[in-house]
Formats: sequence, C-alpha cells, structure tokens
Amino acid sequence: MRPEDIESLLESVRDGRLTPLVAMETLRTLPFREAAGILADTHRLLRQGFVEAVFAEGKTHQQVADALKVLFDSQGAAVATRVDLSCGETLFGRFPEGVYDSTSRVFSIGRFPSRSTKLEIGVISAGTSDMPVAEEAARILEFSGWTVNRIQDVGVAGLHRILGKLEELRSCAVLIVVAGMEGALPGVVGGLVGCPVIAVPTSVGYGVGQNGYAALLTMLTTCASGVCVMNIDNGYGAAVAAQRILNGLSGE
Amino acid sequence: MRPEDIESLLESVRDGRLTPLVAMETLRTLPFREAAGILADTHRLLRQGFVEAVFAEGKTHQQVADALKVLFDSQGAAVATRVDLSCGETLFGRFPEGVYDSTSRVFSIGRFPSRSTKLEIGVISAGTSDMPVAEEAARILEFSGWTVNRIQDVGVAGLHRILGKLEELRSCAVLIVVAGMEGALPGVVGGLVGCPVIAVPTSVGYGVGQNGYAALLTMLTTCASGVCVMNIDNGYGAAVAAQRILNGLSGE
Amino acid sequence: MRPEDIESLLESVRDGRLTPLVAMETLRTLPFREAAGILADTHRLLRQGFVEAVFAEGKTHQQVADALKVLFDSQGAAVATRVDLSCGETLFGRFPEGVYDSTSRVFSIGRFPSRSTKLEIGVISAGTSDMPVAEEAARILEFSGWTVNRIQDVGVAGLHRILGKLEELRSCAVLIVVAGMEGALPGVVGGLVGCPVIAVPTSVGYGVGQNGYAALLTMLTTCASGVCVMNIDNGYGAAVAAQRILNGLSGE
Amino acid sequence: MRPEDIESLLESVRDGRLTPLVAMETLRTLPFREAAGILADTHRLLRQGFVEAVFAEGKTHQQVADALKVLFDSQGAAVATRVDLSCGETLFGRFPEGVYDSTSRVFSIGRFPSRSTKLEIGVISAGTSDMPVAEEAARILEFSGWTVNRIQDVGVAGLHRILGKLEELRSCAVLIVVAGMEGALPGVVGGLVGCPVIAVPTSVGYGVGQNGYAALLTMLTTCASGVCVMNIDNGYGAAVAAQRILNGLSGE
Amino acid sequence: MRPEDIESLLESVRDGRLTPLVAMETLRTLPFREAAGILADTHRLLRQGFVEAVFAEGKTHQQVADALKVLFDSQGAAVATRVDLSCGETLFGRFPEGVYDSTSRVFSIGRFPSRSTKLEIGVISAGTSDMPVAEEAARILEFSGWTVNRIQDVGVAGLHRILGKLEELRSCAVLIVVAGMEGALPGVVGGLVGCPVIAVPTSVGYGVGQNGYAALLTMLTTCASGVCVMNIDNGYGAAVAAQRILNGLSGE
Amino acid sequence: MRPEDIESLLESVRDGRLTPLVAMETLRTLPFREAAGILADTHRLLRQGFVEAVFAEGKTHQQVADALKVLFDSQGAAVATRVDLSCGETLFGRFPEGVYDSTSRVFSIGRFPSRSTKLEIGVISAGTSDMPVAEEAARILEFSGWTVNRIQDVGVAGLHRILGKLEELRSCAVLIVVAGMEGALPGVVGGLVGCPVIAVPTSVGYGVGQNGYAALLTMLTTCASGVCVMNIDNGYGAAVAAQRILNGLSGE
Amino acid sequence: MRPEDIESLLESVRDGRLTPLVAMETLRTLPFREAAGILADTHRLLRQGFVEAVFAEGKTHQQVADALKVLFDSQGAAVATRVDLSCGETLFGRFPEGVYDSTSRVFSIGRFPSRSTKLEIGVISAGTSDMPVAEEAARILEFSGWTVNRIQDVGVAGLHRILGKLEELRSCAVLIVVAGMEGALPGVVGGLVGCPVIAVPTSVGYGVGQNGYAALLTMLTTCASGVCVMNIDNGYGAAVAAQRILNGLSGE
Amino acid sequence: MRPEDIESLLESVRDGRLTPLVAMETLRTLPFREAAGILADTHRLLRQGFVEAVFAEGKTHQQVADALKVLFDSQGAAVATRVDLSCGETLFGRFPEGVYDSTSRVFSIGRFPSRSTKLEIGVISAGTSDMPVAEEAARILEFSGWTVNRIQDVGVAGLHRILGKLEELRSCAVLIVVAGMEGALPGVVGGLVGCPVIAVPTSVGYGVGQNGYAALLTMLTTCASGVCVMNIDNGYGAAVAAQRILNGLSGE
Repeated sequence: MRPEDIESLLESVRDGRLTPLVAMETLRTLPFREAAGILADTHRLLRQGFVEAVFAEGKTHQQVADALKVLFDSQGAAVATRVDLSCGETLFGRFPEGVYDSTSRVFSIGRFPSRSTKLEIGVISAGTSDMPVAEEAARILEFSGWTVNRIQDVGVAGLHRILGKLEELRSCAVLIVVAGMEGALPGVVGGLVGCPVIAVPTSVGYGVGQNGYAALLTMLTTCASGVCVMNIDNGYGAAVAAQRILNGLSGE
Repeated sequence: MRPEDIESLLESVRDGRLTPLVAMETLRTLPFREAAGILADTHRLLRQGFVEAVFAEGKTHQQVADALKVLFDSQGAAVATRVDLSCGETLFGRFPEGVYDSTSRVFSIGRFPSRSTKLEIGVISAGTSDMPVAEEAARILEFSGWTVNRIQDVGVAGLHRILGKLEELRSCAVLIVVAGMEGALPGVVGGLVGCPVIAVPTSVGYGVGQNGYAALLTMLTTCASGVCVMNIDNGYGAAVAAQRILNGLSGE
Repeated sequence: MRPEDIESLLESVRDGRLTPLVAMETLRTLPFREAAGILADTHRLLRQGFVEAVFAEGKTHQQVADALKVLFDSQGAAVATRVDLSCGETLFGRFPEGVYDSTSRVFSIGRFPSRSTKLEIGVISAGTSDMPVAEEAARILEFSGWTVNRIQDVGVAGLHRILGKLEELRSCAVLIVVAGMEGALPGVVGGLVGCPVIAVPTSVGYGVGQNGYAALLTMLTTCASGVCVMNIDNGYGAAVAAQRILNGLSGE
Repeated sequence: MRPEDIESLLESVRDGRLTPLVAMETLRTLPFREAAGILADTHRLLRQGFVEAVFAEGKTHQQVADALKVLFDSQGAAVATRVDLSCGETLFGRFPEGVYDSTSRVFSIGRFPSRSTKLEIGVISAGTSDMPVAEEAARILEFSGWTVNRIQDVGVAGLHRILGKLEELRSCAVLIVVAGMEGALPGVVGGLVGCPVIAVPTSVGYGVGQNGYAALLTMLTTCASGVCVMNIDNGYGAAVAAQRILNGLSGE
Repeated sequence: MRPEDIESLLESVRDGRLTPLVAMETLRTLPFREAAGILADTHRLLRQGFVEAVFAEGKTHQQVADALKVLFDSQGAAVATRVDLSCGETLFGRFPEGVYDSTSRVFSIGRFPSRSTKLEIGVISAGTSDMPVAEEAARILEFSGWTVNRIQDVGVAGLHRILGKLEELRSCAVLIVVAGMEGALPGVVGGLVGCPVIAVPTSVGYGVGQNGYAALLTMLTTCASGVCVMNIDNGYGAAVAAQRILNGLSGE
Repeated sequence: MRPEDIESLLESVRDGRLTPLVAMETLRTLPFREAAGILADTHRLLRQGFVEAVFAEGKTHQQVADALKVLFDSQGAAVATRVDLSCGETLFGRFPEGVYDSTSRVFSIGRFPSRSTKLEIGVISAGTSDMPVAEEAARILEFSGWTVNRIQDVGVAGLHRILGKLEELRSCAVLIVVAGMEGALPGVVGGLVGCPVIAVPTSVGYGVGQNGYAALLTMLTTCASGVCVMNIDNGYGAAVAAQRILNGLSGE
Repeated sequence: MRPEDIESLLESVRDGRLTPLVAMETLRTLPFREAAGILADTHRLLRQGFVEAVFAEGKTHQQVADALKVLFDSQGAAVATRVDLSCGETLFGRFPEGVYDSTSRVFSIGRFPSRSTKLEIGVISAGTSDMPVAEEAARILEFSGWTVNRIQDVGVAGLHRILGKLEELRSCAVLIVVAGMEGALPGVVGGLVGCPVIAVPTSVGYGVGQNGYAALLTMLTTCASGVCVMNIDNGYGAAVAAQRILNGLSGE
Repeated sequence: MRPEDIESLLESVRDGRLTPLVAMETLRTLPFREAAGILADTHRLLRQGFVEAVFAEGKTHQQVADALKVLFDSQGAAVATRVDLSCGETLFGRFPEGVYDSTSRVFSIGRFPSRSTKLEIGVISAGTSDMPVAEEAARILEFSGWTVNRIQDVGVAGLHRILGKLEELRSCAVLIVVAGMEGALPGVVGGLVGCPVIAVPTSVGYGVGQNGYAALLTMLTTCASGVCVMNIDNGYGAAVAAQRILNGLSGE
C-alpha cells in the first residue's frame, strides 16, 4: 500500500464511500503489508543488486526445477548451486537451454546483462582442489553480469606464484580468495593489496584440515587487517558479498 | 628502486661511471628491495588507504608508546587498540595530546583529515555489552576520517527496534554489525539491505555463548546472502574491511 | 498391587484367612511391583498424556513391527518415527491400514481421538529443508489428537515472511519452531509472542552449519527470554514437550 | 497507536474534522509506530505475561541502577540478575527498599502481585552447588507472583532422594530441574511425571564436566521424551519459559 | 521398614491390635521408605564398602564443616576432598584432631580400621605435578583402612623407571595410574600386569595438553586391553573404584 | 624360556654337559626372549588371566583368519571382534567349527573351560540399540569361561525397570553397564550397588548424541563414586577389565 | 635470469651493444623472474633436496596422470600419493612402467638414484592398521633414493616388542614413528634414542580415537623432548621432513 | 650386564663357584637391569646429545631449586624453563651465579661449551608477542653451546619482511619458526628453504586464535611439505628437536 493508496482511502472515507470501520479493516493489515514491502526489496534484482539462487542440496530435483522456473519467469534468467550430476541431468532435460558445469555444480539458464566493464573481480584459488568453490563464485558473478579474472593454483607454499600475479591482483576491484588446508593465501594477499578481500575456506584437506576448520580459523585470525570471511565452501556467498560491494562501486 | 633509478644506473654503466660488477652488486639485491617496496605500500596511508594501528595486548607500555611514536612521526597521527586502563594512563603521560576512550580501549593521537562526507558507515550493535567492540570499529573509522552513524541496542529479540531504523540502515554505504550471544542481528540486517554487511561476533555471553563461538557460527551460517564475517571481538579489522570498500567508493 | 488389594490382604490377615508369614511373602515383592507401578504410569496414555512412539533408527524392520504391534494392541493406535523407505515398505506390508509419510519418516496406524479443538499448535519451519523435522513434530501431534497449524518457509533472511504471519502465531497455544543453518528463527519468534516456544535445531546446513550445532548454539543463547530447546532433529521430542504443556491447558 | 485511535482518526476524517492530507501525515508514521507497538508488547507485563529483568553481567553499576529505575518506574517493581556482591552494594545504596540475595545474585525492588495460587512450580536441584542457578529461577518466579516449591539435593546417585519426593513432583504444574556434572536428573524426573519439565544445566563440575557441557549434552539427549533445555546456568530463562506456560494455565 | 517390621505389623493386624485401615496407611508409604532404604545402603560403610567424602569445591567453609560433622558423628571418621588452604585452616580450627594435607587437599578426621593387610594398592604417578591427584587417591584409601604403595615419577619418557618397578607393580592387587600431558603411562602399565588398572588423567599440561583432555583420550584409546578410566583429576573416584574391587577381594 | 628352563640350563653347565660358551649362545638371546617373555605373559591365558582377541576392523579377511589361526593353535580357542558380515562368511568358510554372531560381530572358535561358577557378571544395557556392544562384552566373557547375566532395556527414562532388577544387580560380582544417548544408566546403577561398575558408552544416538560423546561425558562426570569408564563402543575392553577383577576374585 | 646473465647484459650496455633503454626493458621483468627463480628452487630436486609428489585425492584421474607426466619429463621419475585402486588402474594403463602399491596407495614411475648408503631411515609402525601411512613414508623415501628399515607392529601395549628393536632403532639416522589409537609409541621411542624422531598420527581407531585426534594430542604432549609431529595420516610429509634432515647429514 | 659378564657368570657355575640357583637369581633380573641401562643413555649428555631442563611450572620454588642443583652437580651447568618472576628471584637467591631472563622465563647456571661453529640455527618469530617462546628456544640452544640467529617480526602480513631475510634463512642448518594467531609463517618459510623447519605455534591471539589452536592447525596442514610441528608454546621442545638434528650434522 503506497502513500497514494492511503490518501485515496482516506478520501473515500471523507466522501462517505467507505465507512470508518471498513477502512480500519484495510488499515489493520497495513503494517504487515509494509513488512511485505520489504519482501519486494529482497526479491527485486534492480533494487537489491544481486540475484537469488536456488540452493539445490537437500531439495528434490522437482523442487529445484520448480524454483528455477519461478525465478526464470520473474527475472529472465535463473541459477542453481550445489547441483549434483544426477540433478543436473534432470534440469537439463527440463531446461535444454540451460548450462551445467560439473566442477562448480552450477546450473544456469540465461544470464544477466553485463554490468560495469571497468570493474574486474579477481577469483583466486590456492590449489586445483579448491576450484569447485572458486568456480561457484566466478560463475555466479558472470551469470550476474560481472567480469571475472580467474587466478589459479597460487598457494603460499610457492610464494613466487602469487608474487608473480601482483599486478593482476592490484587491478581488481574486489578479490575473492579461496583456499583449503592451511588457508593462508587470503592473509598473504590481504597484505599485498588495499582493495576488499573476501576469504572463502574450503573443506579440501585431510587430517586436522579435513572439513575446512583449519582454513577457516587461519582466515579469521590472519594478521593482514580487514580480510573478511565466508562460511566453509560458500562460494555463492562470496559472490554476493562481492556484488554488495560492486553495486556501490558501479554507481548502481 | 624505481624504474628511473634503474635507467640512471644503466646510464652510469654506459658512461663508464660504474663498472658492470658494481652495478650487478646493486642489482643483485634488487628483487628484495622490490619486495621491500611492498612494505612501503603497506605502510603508506595514501596508497593502501587505511592506517596501521598498534595492537597493545601482550605488549609492554613502553613498546606500545614507542610504536605509537614511530607511527605518529611518519603519519602525523597514530592510534592504538586494546589499551587497558593502566596502559592508557602511561600513554596519556607520554602523549598529553592523546585521547583515551575506556569503553573501546582505543588511544589516539590526532586524526586523519575527513574523507568523503557523502559516505556514511553504520556501526550497529545488538546490546550494550557489545559496545566496546562496536566503539573500537567506530573510533578507528573516525580517526581515519570517515563519518560514522552509531545504531545501538537493536537486537533481534525486539524486532521493532531494528525495523524502526530501516531508513537509517539503507542510507549507509557500509554496515558493520556487532553482536554477541546468539549473533543473529547481521543476518536480519543482511536481509533488509543491499549494501556490504560486515559481521563482528563478540565474546559477550555465558554458557554455550561464553566466548563468542555461538555468535560466530550464526554469522557464518546466516541465510542472508553475502554477509562476511570477522574474528570474534575484531572491531579494528571490521573498520579496516570497511575502509577497503570505502576507498573504492570514494574514488581514492 | 493396588491399594484395594493391600486392604483385602490385610483383612484376610485380620480374619485369619492368611497367616502373617504368607502375607509377608506377598508383600515382600511389593516395592518392586510398586516400582512396576511407575511403569504403568509411563505407558498409560490417559494418565501421562502423551503416546509412546517406536524409534525405528538402529532397529531391524522386525523389531519395529513387533513394537508397533504391542503398542497398537494396548493403545488402539501406534506410531513409529525415523522409518526409512525400506522399513516403511515392510511395515506397510504388515499393517496395510497404516500410513507412511516419506518426508517425516513417520509410520502410523490409526490415531487418537481429537483433543481440545480450541488449542492450536503452530509448527513453524525456517526453510523447506527443515520440513522433515517439522513434519515429524506435526504428525506426532496430529496422531495424538491435536490440531496443528503449519507455517513454512519463514526464515529470518526475509523478515516480512514471519511478520506477515504474526496474527497466526499469536493465536497458537504453543509454538514449535524448527530451523537449521543459523537457527535464528526461534529467537525472533520468541520476541514476538508470549506463549511457550519450543525450538528445534535441524542438521540442515554445510560448512560450520553442517550438523546442526550452529543452530543449536544460536537457540540456546537467544536473547529472547524463555525459549527452550530440543536436541538436533528431535521433532518427536518437541511434540511431546508440547503435549506436556497442552495437557495442562486442556484441563486433562 | 491503538485500534481505537485509528478508528477515531477515521471518524474525524468522515466527519470533516480532519482533512485526508493531515490524517495521512498521522498515518504515515504508522508502520513504525506499529512496529514500536511490538515493543510495547514486550515491555507490558499484562500482555506478554512475564517481566523483563536487567542482566547485570558486563554492565557498570550505574547502567544496572539506571535500567532498574526505568523498569521500576514503568512496572512498579523491578529485578536484576547476575548481580555480584559489589554491584549489589551499590544498588542497595541507591534502592534501600531493594532485596539482594547473594546466592542467586538477584536484586529485586518490590514484587508483582500473587498470581494463581493453585499453580505451584517445582524448582528442583541436584546438588547444593546447583543452588545459585535454581535460586535465580525460583526468585524470578516469586518476584513475578508465582508460588515455588524448592526441592533440593536430590541427585540421581541416590535415587531414593528423588523417589521420596514423587508426590511433591506430581503436584506441580511445571518443573524446573537444575543439575551440573552429569546432568541426569531432568531425564529421570521426566520419566516420572507428565507435566512440562524445563532442564537447566549448570557449569558446576570439574574435568570434562567443568563448564556444564556434559550436563547440557545429557539433557539434550535424554531418553525421557519432551524434556526441553535452557542454556547453561540460565535460571532466569527457565523462569520465563515456565511463565510462558503458566500464563496459559492460569487463564491469563 | 525391615522385613521383621512388616511381620510384626502383620501380627498386630492378626491380633487385632491394628485395624487393616491403619496398617494400610503404614504400608502405603512403604515403597518410598523402601526407596529410603536404598539410602541407608549408600551411607552405611559396612554394607557398601566405601566411605562418603565431602567434596569441598563450591561449598562454603561452614557447609564443609557441617557435612564433616554429620559424617563423623555417624561413621566415627570423616574426610573431605578439594579443600583449599583457607578452608583447611577453618576446618582445623573446628576439628583440631583433623589432619590437612596441602598437596592432596584432603582433610581427614580419624580413619577407619585397617582392612585386609594382604592386599596392597599401587598408586603410580607419571610426574611430580601429578602428585596432588595421586595423593588424593592414596589418602582416601589409607583413610579407609587400606595399604597403599606409592610409586612416583615413572613416566614413559624414561622407560627404565617403570620397568625397574615391575615386581612392585605385579605384587599389587589393584593399580591406580595417574598421569597428565600425554597420559601414556596407564597403557604401558596395563600391558605389563594382569590386575585391574584404573587410569586417572590429570589437568597437568600446557598447549593441547592444558586441561587433561589429551591424557584422557590417550587413556580411553590405549591398546592395552581392559584399562578403565576416571574423569580428569578424579583421584577420589579412583580410590572408590579401587575399593569396589578390593571389597570383593578381601571377602567383605 | 621359562624359569625352570634356565635352571636346567645352568645345571647342565655345572654338570659339564654344556660348555659356558654354548650356554652363553643360548642365553645371548635371553634378554629379548625375556622381553619376549613379557609377550608370553600377554599371550598366555593362565598367567595374565584374559585372552587376546583379533580386532578385525581395518584388517583384510586374510589377516583376520591368519591371526585367528595363530591364536587358536596356541590357545586351543580363539576369538575375533568387529567382524562384519562379509568377513564373518570368509571366516566361516575357513573355520567351519566357528560361531559367528551378527549382532555382536564376534566370531569365535571353541571356548575356554568354565571358570568359577560362583561369580556372575552382569551385562546391563539401556536400550535395544546398545545390544551390539553389550553382546560383544557378554560373548567375550562367555568365550573366556565366565557366567554372564544379561539385563536388557532398563534405561533410566523408566526407573521401575532398573529398580525391578535390584536383586539381580546385587548378586553380581562385577557389572558392565552399556548405554548410548544420555548414558545415565551407569551412574544410577553405581548409586545402587557396591560392586565394581564398568561403564561403556555407545555411539548410539543422534543430534548431539550422535557419536557417543554425550554418553561418555555423562559417565565420566557421574556423581555416583567409583564408576570407571571405557572408550565408546569398547565392549571387548569392558570384558577384559572385568576379567582383570574376576581373576583376583576367583583366586586365580 | 641468472647472475651471469645479468653480468653479461651489463657488459653489453658498457660496450654499447645495448642501449640503456633496451636493457631496462629486459630488467623490468626481473623481479618477477627472480620471484619465478624461487619457483625453480622449489622444483629443482638437486637444490631443494626432495621431490615433489602429486597428491591424487580430489583430483581426476586425468589431472593426476597429466601432473605425473610433467614431473616425469622434468625429473626422470615421478610419484603420486593417495592413489585409490581405480585411479591406480588408470595410471597403470597410461604408464605401464609404473608401480602401484595398494597398501600405501603410492604410484611411482622410475626412481631417483641411491643416496648415501650409510644413512638408514627407520620407519616404525605401532600396528598393522598403521601400515598404509608408514608405507607411504617408506616408499616416498625409497623412491627418492634413500634406504629404509621397516619396523612393524611394535605398539607400547607390549613393551618387549619395541625394546627388542632397540639396537636397530639406534642405528638409524632418522626415525619416522607412525601410530594410531593412543599414539604413545613416538614418545616411548623418543625417550630411547637421541636422533630426530618424526611422529605421524594415523586416523586408525574408534570411539574417541576415531579420526586420529587422540593420537595427535598424545604426540604433541609427549614428555619425551624434541619429538616433532606431522598432520594425521601425513606419511608423505614425514618422508619430506626426513629428507630435509638427511640432505644435511649426507652433505648434499 | 654385558656378554662378558654372562660368560664369566657361567664359568663360575661351571667351576662350582656359584650354584645354579644363585646364578639364576642374577639372571632373573637381567632384562630389567638391561632396561635400567637405558636410563644411563637418557641422562648422559654426551651420548644423548641434549641437556635435560627443569620444567618449573607446577613445581614449588624449592623443587625447582633442588632439581637444578642435582643437574648442575652432574652436568656442570643447568637450566630451568617456565620460571616466573617470583620463582626466578628465589633461584637467584640460591644460585647468585645464575642468569634469569624474564622474557623467555629461562633460568640458567653456566652453559655448555660451544659446539660446531659452522652450524647456525635460525629462530624466527612472526611478531613481538611470540618472542617469549622464540627466546625459550634460542636460550636453550645457546645454553647447550649452539649458535643462534634471531630473526624477528617477519609475519606474513608483510611479505617483504621475510623475503628480505631470504639469504639469512638459507644459511641456517635448521630453522625454528614461531608464530601465533594465524600461524602461516612456517609454511611460507618451508616453501622458501630446503633445510629442516620446526614450527612452534604460540598461544598468542584472541577470538578463535585465543589459545594457539588456529596456529597449530595451520602448521599441521601447511602445503609446504615436510614442516614438522611442536606443541603450542613448546619452545624448549623445538630446541631439543633441533639438537637431535644438529648432533647428526655436527658429527657428534
């Protein structure tokens, strides 16, 4: 209910077209409709600045497909994450125009128009095993219209690798740094650049590194100031965090 | 060693003013001087965009004072965090022009010139016990020249409190959201706004919430997409993470 | 041995029909029969107010079926929880009148007569992945004769969803609130209503939310006062906790 | 703004006493006042059914005293929890009519009128070391006008102790069961009675029982169905949980 | 109520001295008095075979002194554990005949008559820092009338030390093995002897060994079969566990 | 080499039947054989008092079968634990006289002669899901020649069940008490009897009880004195711990 | 670019064969090539002293095979670890000259020339289940040209086993000690020898020993001084740690 | 007992100077005397290659002083670690020739003669707060006669610092790398050098880095191969681990 609606409702009361009691009934639910107004914000891409994805894990193929359909119908493009191979095949059957990437487990239908071409997002991964998470972030960003620069296999055990990419790192507007095992890469990168650094621990590892906690703790405690951290394996979240920043940078 | 230095060195060789062997000796340490050049980046405020603070915990009063002196001499302003009352008194004795805030435990000498006045940073805290961490973030930002909007005591147990601040939240460029105990506030805020949200868990709580882990886990797992998280009680880090974003937004 | 039995035994002694020694032999086992009397309390629905269910996990199909049979014979209705598909099929073969719900994994035979129709129990779930646990609670309550109001997919990342259900929440006598990942929903609900709120964390999630501990800690530390918590995934327990309350409210 | 206020405003519009524009100005702030109306719910004892307490831990003496003053002025009675000896003395100096109990660390000024005298709440503690938490619960309940039956030192290592109290247990409307170390008492009690059982683990113990986690896990996993659990040492929360139930039972 | 009491009650009924109704009233509370009979078992040394001690931690000096008085009056000897220096002085003031040992923090008044002199209990400690816990066990055993053989400072880092004591180990009826840090001693001892081995981890250590968990886990996972484990620092419990075994061995 | 062998060798030297050099050759390996003599202790049933079992988990079928063969050849009977169905079939093929029990996963060939018939060991389990662990303990004891009294399904949620077995409990020389989930049974039993109580937590449970840690912590912190604890699911270890005690009791 | 290259470049400038501008262009990329020079260190066997292996876990068969090919081409031999059976078959198909060991899951092609034959590395394992990790270490060492002495099944539960190997232990230059469950073996070995001891916990175990943490904690807290520890199951790392030491010892 | 002793004993038997029974008594304790021979190894500096220190934590001043006296008398020099200020003063009173360093908390009397002067040990610390642990390692090494090169404040957040020390790092025979918080330094160093790297996590940090676990996990999971790890804060252990290596390198 917009201000003009309220005004028109009040005029109806004044004009005797509505009794106060009926008008009050309408106004009674006003707070919650306003609250429902918050919903519109959340869902509308243009105002919030980032797309909603379907999280496929723990949903049936049917549920994922239905959710994609709803999002596609309202947005003209839709994406799902954590889509395993079997689910990917089902989705492909239903949306032949879709694209499934088995590394990142991302299934997308269409994509959003390109955003600011001046802003590049670096998606950096420490090892090849971290690529699924890094790719999830990269593909969500590309699906949303942003330009991604992938920098792979630059773990700190061979410092020359990351040092050799210094100029590339410094030309990015935002860096997403993905690492498993010891998870030291985001801290090293954070000490080299001044732009926002979003660290994503992965569950890649064994022994005490088995589920990503070692990498998570390293990233939270890094001495490089101002590195912020996502949940383990949360490439999608990193992509959204980047977009929260990019929207401001691109003036949108 | 800057490019012009190398060029002048090579001209000296060409002109016979330097033998190749002496020049080589100079060039031999070049990579490390270049590496040392990275240092300059880190330390120089204008290029990296955020100030270095002295972390006082675990240092002697003398060590903190000396470090402040060095930073002040090079930057014209300096700040220390985690300064307890006793240390604060020592610092005050040495730097009478300094300001000590016992809530945030921040000691600052001077401050940096104001930055972009259009960009406001919201520092939101769930309860009064979370104020020390929130204030650490706020004061570091103010010391660095940014404008802070403090929004306090808006925990999710009384939703009306945060809902009543919706417009203020939406006018901020970046939000730092500080909460202990259950730590649910950043997720709720993240669902209401589209700007960057930096979550800081605090060690405020008792029982299973005693050391901030409950709040940390809540923030890492929040369903609101793109909320990024700092270490427990790391108000300073949140302030730097905000500045990494703000530098881009302010075109610096 | 009931009081009247003891009285009649004592009268037999008085009347000389039993010698004290023989009577004592009878009384000798009294304490343990009395102890056994506690058992009757536990098992008798009318006095304790809630039904016993068969927990199928870790039992053979045969064991589950046999336990259901015993309960059915004594209660006229019986229910099992955590019944996987394969076990459900076995049970269906043996009890063709039974009903199996694959989402909640509940298998029930018959149901108890309706209880107080004025009292409604709200079963609220944060996301679709939390439905199995929510449904376990809802179906146990319905099996026991209570009226359930399901409110689904109202997680806190979109506050409008739960705010839009405020009136429904306030019309319930008891609320069971089920959530995984960050588990913030029960605290938000607890701040909105004054009735009993029973929080159930689920094992839905990934990374640090993988097994439900993040949700559990959030619920235990929530700033909304008086929210009480069940074990992770314990929908059945929440239903029984609700019945402990409802029995008092319904005057039974 | 209450429904009757809106109704009267609408009547003013109908009657021409207010122009629609002026009325709209008044209604414009409605959503947030309504949101603020949620706040009133929280604070108003008569509607929500339980009082708000000041949590003194981590607050200055001044902050606690000020908060008590505000609550006392609006409610005619006020209470603070986790008040240490030193803070208690400060409060006593400011509120000479107050009562401080050093075991429970509760400071109260006045108390609420007695509620239903038919409903008795059992507060049961396993050992003498658990008494501070049990007393916090008991005193909050008594302050709120309820009748408490304390049953102390009935840990499961000597079963006769709790069995000897069986009749007392069964005459209570709600049971709060407080235990540290192994925390087995709530499960045993839950198997003996059909009324609501609220379990509170305490941080009493040593070795693996040092911080209350052993007791918490025991209570969450108890085989006695429908026992619900509070955070460690959260006696206040248990008292509020009990009141959420009692309000229904007392018809308020 | 003992069997003879029941018999005499029944005879009173037979003889007309008691009406059945009055007798039934007496019998009505029988189960709980019987339950109370369990209590007597617990407290009576001669039947249960081990003494009850006062656990002083978390109790006031007054409470400890009172509890000691009650036990002393009923047993002719009494003992308290976890008595810190200050409490020890208070107790000494009240019980001048008592003995306080500051290493084990045990305060005892009198002692029980010697038990079987053939059975020796070995109390073995890995390092000098483990002595407080070992001494608690040893002194409780000696207070209870048993003979203790202390074997100290025989940690596995110098195997010759424990191997040099092999004959002593093998002459003991029961071994209590106390160790902190890595806690490997009980496993090594368990592989060398066939008698019962009771392992007690201590909270002695630093780093990952800081609270005794490393030692606890080592003892629980030891490859030496049949070693059983007590809570961290639970020397008293080990002494009671030993007495449960010794009572059988001594034919009592 | 047994003591009598050494004596006879020395007599051969004295009598000139062996030269010192030849004897020394024999003795040369003595330390290691003596060391090996420790091994013999371990392996020889008559001296150590309990049998060695093959732990099948993580071994190939072939390795398990070979180890059984070696033990059978030296002892006349042999037993393996943690034998899954597939391995059990392999063993059955090789040792047709063997017995495989799929509940306890124990495979045994032959058994040891009966020991003292006066001593009965109680193996008590809280729920039917705990039976695999309880049966492992019971079958190892029976294989070793001891008499077992199984008491099943007597969890503390229905106290009458364990109270009804009080006389049986008290007639046992040693009690092994097996429980998962909350693990409260050993503490309750320990408060009822004076004999040795060996507690075994099982990994039966879900949520926070999922892997047996809740039960383990409960058992370690139980207020019933002198209850000692085994590793989670370690039924075999409990059986050996019992035998360490029983050997003393039976005078062997 | 090697020092001699720089010297020759400078001489060209002096001699007028290169203009300073052209030379500067060459030198411009120097820092990063130097950084790349660090890479060469890492990869070049002769300078760093140990080979790089392909970690197959989490890589596709294709990725493993390709990486092996690259290493083989540059080193003349190559090795992969954590190769499961299926991957091993694929590799065997591509590299028929390769050797696959299913216990250690190591796949190797060729091997490096023998190193110092005087230096022997002891690889000691506590139990047969620890062999996969021990073999990984042993085979990596042999592949790298070192001589390994395997000492197996010498766990501390039977001390004679490790004591009987004392001379062998003392003849080794470095000891790698592998153990699961309680992990006490490295501490015992560390107390017996003066050479470097590298401890490797394995994930072999059950209950609290299930994932190797118990063994890890034991090794980190061992009272035997100077034992250093690798990640759980990290046999490869232990082999490299040994080579870091051996390179110095062999004078390479 | 050496072979020649056994031969002479056998000759005594042959010659009738000893009876077989007396000889057997001598041989009976042979294994354990041999075992006792292990002791000498452990304690004798010249054979084991590193000195024993007194660990002062948890010992009385008297116990520390006595232990130092014993070591000094046998070795001509002695050292204690973890000596707090108060204990240091006591020791200084008793050993005026001693040296106490309050940073490392090391108290030493005399020192051992210089060892190989060619071998330098690098002791590297990430931050100034890590210096107490680094100094403990350095001073133990210097006390033992080795040459230490301290490299301080070279944490990875400013890579130039450690890169600037590359040549120094490469000239060391062994590196001890000490770091708290994120603990990433040892991995970075391990990737830069080929010599043995001993990582020591410190308990310096806050939030999730509070007790050193984050640093420990990082070090255990580092991708730089062959880095081995000590317990948290175990500077002494690192010094001994270094000496185990150095003894071999120096040919001792």
